Amino acid sequence: MNLKILWPGKTKDGDFRRLQGFYLERIQQLANCKLMETKEARGIEEKFADRIKEIEAQALEKYLKDDYIICLSDEGSEMNSFDFARFLEKGGASSRPITFVVGGFLGLADRILKKADFLLSLSKMTFSHELSRVVFLEQLYRSLTILSGKPYAK
Amino acid sequence: MNLKILWPGKTKDGDFRRLQGFYLERIQQLANCKLMETKEARGIEEKFADRIKEIEAQALEKYLKDDYIICLSDEGSEMNSFDFARFLEKGGASSRPITFVVGGFLGLADRILKKADFLLSLSKMTFSHELSRVVFLEQLYRSLTILSGKPYAK
Repeated sequence: MNLKILWPGKTKDGDFRRLQGFYLERIQQLANCKLMETKEARGIEEKFADRIKEIEAQALEKYLKDDYIICLSDEGSEMNSFDFARFLEKGGASSRPITFVVGGFLGLADRILKKADFLLSLSKMTFSHELSRVVFLEQLYRSLTILSGKPYAK
Repeated sequence: MNLKILWPGKTKDGDFRRLQGFYLERIQQLANCKLMETKEARGIEEKFADRIKEIEAQALEKYLKDDYIICLSDEGSEMNSFDFARFLEKGGASSRPITFVVGGFLGLADRILKKADFLLSLSKMTFSHELSRVVFLEQLYRSLTILSGKPYAK
């Protein structure tokens, strides 16, 4: 299974960053998975949200190509962990790599969301973007353990 | 608003534990909130799940009394963050303190779930119990900032 994960900017909080590393390492033991922390918009006031999202969209787009694109979005569909594992298995059987895109502080530009083959929601609740990253990685790791039949650690 | 949070055993992972402290501190700036990490079952094999949950139920029960009890459960109802804030506001207006109960590694005993006035689900997906704690605290903090009109920090 070829997986790619994209999000703008490095995760800043040390605790979230360590948890991210913890889950990513375990994911990489079960699948070919690359995380790319793309260019984030800096020094622009939050009221210029569209400009921020546009700058980040340009950086994300360089990596999107013809992959099967799954964007995380509050507007997306929810799945339980077993259905997510099955969904991943089905996607992984195709020759197209799967790319997950997680938004930054202000979410993703519409332009990126429109490119998505699938919109995935982790919860009805809104999580901070750094928490979303860790929740997403934990789900990806959980799904891969479900598919591999290995025990879930931690 | 009088809030109490119960769960069996201290959060072991250092990163989750620090994030727990981070959110709890912010929650306590906005509401009267106590976290009690109750006795957890130790040294019992996982195959004796009912026994583990029973030991933990006994410790949790000591604190349950006549509060309005909300148990976190995969079987519960999902809400978005704004609805959760309104739900909290309504509950907080009553004289009964609100107690949230989050399960341990194996979840909560049926006996505890039956005592609940409300079952709340954070997501269709299954999170590890330590991740659930942090996600729950982040939602509680987010809801209190919504109710107070203060900006959400982090």
